[in-house]
Amino acid sequence: MSTDELAGVHPAWLPPRAFRAIAARRVAVHGTGPLADTVREEAVRAGATLAEDAELVFKLTGDRAPLGDEGFAISRAGGVTLVLADAPAGLLHGFFHVVRLGEAAFTGERPVERHVPAMRRRMLDHWDNLDVHPVMGQVERGYSGGSIFWEAGAQRDLARVRAYARLLAATGINAVAINNVNVHRAEAHLLTDRVGEVAAVAAAFRPYGIRVHLSVSFASPVVLGGLPTADPLDPAVRAWWAETTWRVYEAIPDFGGYVVKADSEGQPGPFGYGRSHADGANLLAEALEPFGGVVHWRAFVYNHRQDWRDRSTDRARAAYDHFAPLDGQFRDNAILQVKYGPIDFQTREPISPVIAAMPATNVAVELQVTQEYTGQQRHACYLGPMWSEVLRFPLAGHVTVAGLAEELVAVSNVGDDPYWTGHPLAQANLYAFGRLAWEPSLDPLSILDEWVDLTLGPDVDREALHGILDDSWRTYESYTAPLGVGFMVRPGHHYGPDVDGYEYTPWGTYHFADRDGVGVDRTRATGTGFTGQYPKPWSDVYESVERCPDELLLFFHHVPYGHVLHNGATVIQHIYDTHFAGAERVEEMRRLWDRLDGQVDPALFERVRERLDEQVRSAAEWRDQINTYFHRKSGVPDAKGRRIY
Amino acid sequence: MSTDELAGVHPAWLPPRAFRAIAARRVAVHGTGPLADTVREEAVRAGATLAEDAELVFKLTGDRAPLGDEGFAISRAGGVTLVLADAPAGLLHGFFHVVRLGEAAFTGERPVERHVPAMRRRMLDHWDNLDVHPVMGQVERGYSGGSIFWEAGAQRDLARVRAYARLLAATGINAVAINNVNVHRAEAHLLTDRVGEVAAVAAAFRPYGIRVHLSVSFASPVVLGGLPTADPLDPAVRAWWAETTWRVYEAIPDFGGYVVKADSEGQPGPFGYGRSHADGANLLAEALEPFGGVVHWRAFVYNHRQDWRDRSTDRARAAYDHFAPLDGQFRDNAILQVKYGPIDFQTREPISPVIAAMPATNVAVELQVTQEYTGQQRHACYLGPMWSEVLRFPLAGHVTVAGLAEELVAVSNVGDDPYWTGHPLAQANLYAFGRLAWEPSLDPLSILDEWVDLTLGPDVDREALHGILDDSWRTYESYTAPLGVGFMVRPGHHYGPDVDGYEYTPWGTYHFADRDGVGVDRTRATGTGFTGQYPKPWSDVYESVERCPDELLLFFHHVPYGHVLHNGATVIQHIYDTHFAGAERVEEMRRLWDRLDGQVDPALFERVRERLDEQVRSAAEWRDQINTYFHRKSGVPDAKGRRIY
Repeated sequence: MSTDELAGVHPAWLPPRAFRAIAARRVAVHGTGPLADTVREEAVRAGATLAEDAELVFKLTGDRAPLGDEGFAISRAGGVTLVLADAPAGLLHGFFHVVRLGEAAFTGERPVERHVPAMRRRMLDHWDNLDVHPVMGQVERGYSGGSIFWEAGAQRDLARVRAYARLLAATGINAVAINNVNVHRAEAHLLTDRVGEVAAVAAAFRPYGIRVHLSVSFASPVVLGGLPTADPLDPAVRAWWAETTWRVYEAIPDFGGYVVKADSEGQPGPFGYGRSHADGANLLAEALEPFGGVVHWRAFVYNHRQDWRDRSTDRARAAYDHFAPLDGQFRDNAILQVKYGPIDFQTREPISPVIAAMPATNVAVELQVTQEYTGQQRHACYLGPMWSEVLRFPLAGHVTVAGLAEELVAVSNVGDDPYWTGHPLAQANLYAFGRLAWEPSLDPLSILDEWVDLTLGPDVDREALHGILDDSWRTYESYTAPLGVGFMVRPGHHYGPDVDGYEYTPWGTYHFADRDGVGVDRTRATGTGFTGQYPKPWSDVYESVERCPDELLLFFHHVPYGHVLHNGATVIQHIYDTHFAGAERVEEMRRLWDRLDGQVDPALFERVRERLDEQVRSAAEWRDQINTYFHRKSGVPDAKGRRIY
Repeated sequence: MSTDELAGVHPAWLPPRAFRAIAARRVAVHGTGPLADTVREEAVRAGATLAEDAELVFKLTGDRAPLGDEGFAISRAGGVTLVLADAPAGLLHGFFHVVRLGEAAFTGERPVERHVPAMRRRMLDHWDNLDVHPVMGQVERGYSGGSIFWEAGAQRDLARVRAYARLLAATGINAVAINNVNVHRAEAHLLTDRVGEVAAVAAAFRPYGIRVHLSVSFASPVVLGGLPTADPLDPAVRAWWAETTWRVYEAIPDFGGYVVKADSEGQPGPFGYGRSHADGANLLAEALEPFGGVVHWRAFVYNHRQDWRDRSTDRARAAYDHFAPLDGQFRDNAILQVKYGPIDFQTREPISPVIAAMPATNVAVELQVTQEYTGQQRHACYLGPMWSEVLRFPLAGHVTVAGLAEELVAVSNVGDDPYWTGHPLAQANLYAFGRLAWEPSLDPLSILDEWVDLTLGPDVDREALHGILDDSWRTYESYTAPLGVGFMVRPGHHYGPDVDGYEYTPWGTYHFADRDGVGVDRTRATGTGFTGQYPKPWSDVYESVERCPDELLLFFHHVPYGHVLHNGATVIQHIYDTHFAGAERVEEMRRLWDRLDGQVDPALFERVRERLDEQVRSAAEWRDQINTYFHRKSGVPDAKGRRIY
């Protein structure tokens, strides 16, 4: 481990400055094994001296119960800061906690504080391909350059992956799936003859306690194995997966497992053989079980060849309809990976009812750190507040989404961009995801504060940064699709407005705007019945046009433009008001950033300024298209007489 | 020249059957040179015997005046059919005329009939790239497979090109530009180090009297020559073009010339150097002049980064605004290539006023045989009637478009598909283009008859074929964008409906539909003033909402949905009626085709049936989206109570 920074790559939240409180301290690490070694290396890299009479002591308890595989306890007494853990991974998490605390870790007395992750697995999914895909680029829905793992079909130098592992470990992430869930031909071979490349990546992640997972094609037995079928109940198919998986573990003893997108958007799956998704997931779970691996089976299954004329089909219903009946049929090491909302990572969606519908199934909730629908890292949009709302949402009685989920998974926003994430401020999303996955009750604005402190230092204009980022998700919401209706984006690339772009397509993403009103009737009384998939009280709250929260009104109801919201405005005036206000707010964000001039690295300053210029342009475009669209349709003038084209 | 058919490739309008009347005849060809040789070879290939005492005599007059370079005279007396020409190319055209006549050429007496082409150049532009373009495929706007010239970046075996040359010659085509007007990096090199490939293609076309032209990048002096500028007034640039062109003619002595798309949709051009398009065109014309070559300079110049909020900019105005002031400034061997309509090959557009605005300039009118906006060779859409309307249109007093144009050019619909054109019935468009370019006064339905006779034989159900094709263009118009408004297609690929797809984009293709009405106000009185670009009476006819023809109403006027058309219907009811009728008509076309079962080659039958199935599906999709869109907006119910979604 070199103490040099990776040339040309931004240190993100681990610049040398972040280790200042540890530098020149005496540190003792009691423990053996690679992760304890990593703690020692990190201490030395920070500038500390390894010594027996230490001010900072890392120690294994020899126990196993209270702190678990990854938790730690921190305390300070008699001038010694003590990090205790039951297992070496806990020491490493404790080390990065000390980094976050900075001087506070070495000041006064501290009572014992226990930190145990809420989620057993905190995982990032990379949608990386080995080479550039003609339509999707190399990283599907990636806005940060090429893959950090592969270039032009071949494995890259992994120095950057090692640096990435360190960054992720500092947030609490412990699992990474390294390739696209849409598994193309070349990528399929990572499972077999190219597994050595996966092993090399796993070796880069291993010192930081992060396991590597692999997206695989359900058709692998046919595509790679030459079998005539991939039927999950076929003995030869089961044998092929058992044998193949055994070979993977020969190459990577701590391999995490498989990720599968099956029967979705053209991917193969068990439906092709008349089998259920439980059959499909259990096939892989069975192969992985002897080695302690898991399969992440995505619940993102819907009819993407829907006829827009057919009002009875509702894409929002699909995951529940497919999976709820299968609860209890999945093996223990199969994890159902459910997007947080019923559609697809929109800026505003209700919580997916599937999360409450699978009490006898391991559920991972999937978020999207990459900003596919939230500005594609050209817009500053801090997603911590959104994820916090999702995780705290009491979906089943008092039980929140965080309480219902065994795991938290997200699609990564990282590429080979010098700032890792294209937009430098999008680093905060990656950071916040890891922190919230570890502890969902954290305040997202405090997490943002941590990120600013570590990344940009304690002396920058924090008020300006909070002014830019704190409300940026709600600002983004305000100038894009209104009131939860979603999907008014350009088809294909999903950037910028196109109100009718998906309205008559097979993708099942409609708003049904006409001259009288807008929204999707998903009630049991008169609509698709989607509200009935929720437990009480939500099944009643969402069913009722009076009780439904404003921000989800058009997701659940088709209402006239004159409908009065809880906030007192009509729907049409609310659309105008939020769009004018949102675009203005972005101009304010743009002005606030100028206050950082001279306080941050000039190149970073410029990069953010450029992106904010584009955000100003794009927000005005959104404002004008949305307002014009609804003005042309409704004929209702803006009460405040502002310019609508 | 082999008498075998090209394996796996459909013979189109030159199957052995088409030569039956010539087979076993005694033929004499008096003349020397390669084109006279071709006539002899064709006669032998048809099964004729070369003999002095012939029934069919081809003879050069030794004169030059009355028939010109390509014309011929045909007559029959005393049992001898005589084809006279002033030049060998005329003999070849005469030969194919005899093929078209069949037995009639050898029956009774025939007075002398002169056939001289109306257009001196009858040209096809291929938009072929050397390799597959990530977005556009290999052939831009091609719907018939890959290029017949190149595959995977390398030149193909040219047997197919030779067969293509023969087919084109039989229609009267005498010039082909072989590469995309959007000249990408690899294709630019065809001008210099890869000119040998152009020479090889030229050799394949030469025996059929067809010259090869090349699309070149205006930036060639920079890209290929390493010069610091491509400024048309820079002496080094002029010298580079002179030298480069000299080398091209060294390789291809009968090279036709250059085709240039400049300052258009991202292509470089003279605007970058503050020069006019006359400067740009003359630069190349000057280089070509010593060798008898010409430059085709496209007038397709407009602002494709328009702001939809700016109502003062009108894409329809652009070509006239750019080029009319330059009339008289172009060299004699510069040809201004003008699309027939002011926008872009829509199903229905008014005639481009540029065609009448350049009396001192050589004008080529450009049509689109490839069906980019007319069903992409998945829809049967015979374009002969449309082109005939265009050519016969009296744009300047009594002078028609055919009279104003020196040349006719069209974008080819040919690829390496077994039927040449994807949809077998789209062959008729290629055939008709050549025939109309030779003689614009021909009846397009008679041309269709010729094509059927030659291609499918005299015994097929001609009534069914006419039922399918005669009105197919107007049928296509009826179920797509209404009343001349245009461009309601999916952005990018342009297939299928998307009413608002381009409405808020920078491409300048708007319809301004709101809850009250639809259409673009292009009047002088209240609109963009485009009507003022026309000579009288059209400037007044189009200006007047009362006099404007129904089919162009929404191109020129924004009217309420209740506006009553000349046909007595309101605009909204007309939209409903035409869309229901159009989709029904396609179902009828589909049924008619079944009558051909057993009368044509089974593979061809199946291919057409599949395409008609898709046309039925697509026409219903168009009907329902257009009707639903306007019903949602207008709120006006269908007077006949039919199903609108």
